[in-house]
Amino acid sequence: MTTTPPPIGLDDVRDAATRIRGVAHRTPVLRSRTLDALAGAEVFLKCENFQRVGAFKFRGAYNAASRLAPEQLARGIAAYSSGNHAQAVALAARELGSTAVIVMPEDAPLAKRAATAGYGAEIVTYDRYTGDRVAVAEALAAERGLALIPPYEHPHVMAGQGTAALELLEEAGALDALVVPVGGGGLMAGCATAAKALHGPIRMIGVEPEAGDDTKRSLEAGRRVTVPVPRTIADGQALPTPGELTFSVNRRLVDAIALVGDEEIREAMRFAFERLKIVLEPSGATPLAALLTGRAGPLPRRVGLILSGGNVDAARFARLCGGAG
Amino acid sequence: MTTTPPPIGLDDVRDAATRIRGVAHRTPVLRSRTLDALAGAEVFLKCENFQRVGAFKFRGAYNAASRLAPEQLARGIAAYSSGNHAQAVALAARELGSTAVIVMPEDAPLAKRAATAGYGAEIVTYDRYTGDRVAVAEALAAERGLALIPPYEHPHVMAGQGTAALELLEEAGALDALVVPVGGGGLMAGCATAAKALHGPIRMIGVEPEAGDDTKRSLEAGRRVTVPVPRTIADGQALPTPGELTFSVNRRLVDAIALVGDEEIREAMRFAFERLKIVLEPSGATPLAALLTGRAGPLPRRVGLILSGGNVDAARFARLCGGAG
Repeated sequence: MTTTPPPIGLDDVRDAATRIRGVAHRTPVLRSRTLDALAGAEVFLKCENFQRVGAFKFRGAYNAASRLAPEQLARGIAAYSSGNHAQAVALAARELGSTAVIVMPEDAPLAKRAATAGYGAEIVTYDRYTGDRVAVAEALAAERGLALIPPYEHPHVMAGQGTAALELLEEAGALDALVVPVGGGGLMAGCATAAKALHGPIRMIGVEPEAGDDTKRSLEAGRRVTVPVPRTIADGQALPTPGELTFSVNRRLVDAIALVGDEEIREAMRFAFERLKIVLEPSGATPLAALLTGRAGPLPRRVGLILSGGNVDAARFARLCGGAG
Repeated sequence: MTTTPPPIGLDDVRDAATRIRGVAHRTPVLRSRTLDALAGAEVFLKCENFQRVGAFKFRGAYNAASRLAPEQLARGIAAYSSGNHAQAVALAARELGSTAVIVMPEDAPLAKRAATAGYGAEIVTYDRYTGDRVAVAEALAAERGLALIPPYEHPHVMAGQGTAALELLEEAGALDALVVPVGGGGLMAGCATAAKALHGPIRMIGVEPEAGDDTKRSLEAGRRVTVPVPRTIADGQALPTPGELTFSVNRRLVDAIALVGDEEIREAMRFAFERLKIVLEPSGATPLAALLTGRAGPLPRRVGLILSGGNVDAARFARLCGGAG
């Protein structure tokens, strides 16, 4: 039996923190008396919805891009994403004086295309029914000599995402548990690496949408499992299988996965809106949903939540959450 | 010609700051690169939507209530309001171990009644078509020996609201202009008193809804003018005339009033939601509307905005802002 060393360690996260300083926001940690009373715990909310581009993704994208050689930055960066990673790479490239080419499906929402183009990126589209976005991006990168920054399967990306936990623990002090959304697993891998290294006994609780429980099943099976493409409003977590690299970290460090349904996510978005006065996109609200429904399990005294993003426009929010009240 | 001394000074605001410390939140001052670029200025957002009860009103209510004698607190406090002042007085009473009776119209939204009752207050209703809320509250106060805390016409209330500007200036440093919503005028009176005392040249810009331009007209006329009851989504500013006490302050200290239309307020609420990721109620968004539309006039270099509250439920937000995108 051989033991592979973990792809990242606390030093990588600390190094990422140095690189992103002054470029990424050090996002606020909010408290709420109402939430504490409901949860029966002291709850610390790390608000990545206030991060640049509206989500934690900028941390990892900038950390990875900042390590490219000047010649590579001159040639440019590529990424495939129709979500927050697209804007994150576009902005990271601009901040570093480079250029970005983002591969998106032809039918990606105009608002997302416009936002990404607004950061100066070139958009290349593909047909999502006949094309393979990874193949398209890799071919493009090879052809133009671009550096491809993947959304989670990369040590620098994972280490960058871990800076969210590092900042939270610096500000809140030791926590008994940390609740983190899990999609591809990059945010969890980075946060778990930092948190377990700093405070060994901390309980790492991942949250997935019920329809996208691939990481939960994979942890139970002890190997990466593939589920049908999840149908969920939590579009940041609609992935059928965990990343290989991220799973190699998460299988060692994650203590439990909580599952939340779409209606519970909607309720958590509404709670964030009406009680906390902040905007969370569906995936960003999953830790709050796990807390409010009790699905995160019996809670210890001091609990941190990574509220991962806030990119939902007013019209979509109205469709998702405007029905009650 | 006699000169009446101003009803409050900087010392009153400083004294209020001491009293509310640890009870009211010291709300965050947010920045936005997007907003700075749009405004061509450095913009500092004092987020009173994150204040307890979701609005600045708690500052003044608590400051006033905290000065009542123990015997008075034992008898109780009264207020008339169907809005944020109701919850503010209810919570202030609870924090001080007192009780509150709030006079509301019979047809006040159930959510507002429930929120106020949730802080332990007794609700007394009146018929808004036949009754006079001030008369009802005064009769009740006399009958039961309650102390009446008015929503703005009181030096302790005005001084309490001024702590928002005090905190903002402490955190942001000297500002060239401060943009403040004006309804009854208590927030503006307190903020202008603090800001002009600390930084003489600061430009105080009030914002009113177009339909409720009573303070603008009153400043132009040099005396309090009454307009028809305003029809506007900015329910915190739907008052027909400025307060007597607040106007005596504001006529000396306010440099200009900007008017904003309901559609502009909606657009500002949407901007706050989609770009700043925060929730603002219509009145709370009026300073942002004045900035985004240019109605606040040509802006100097460093500008503060008091975003006064965030009490809008998801369903109302959806009706007001869910149509676009």
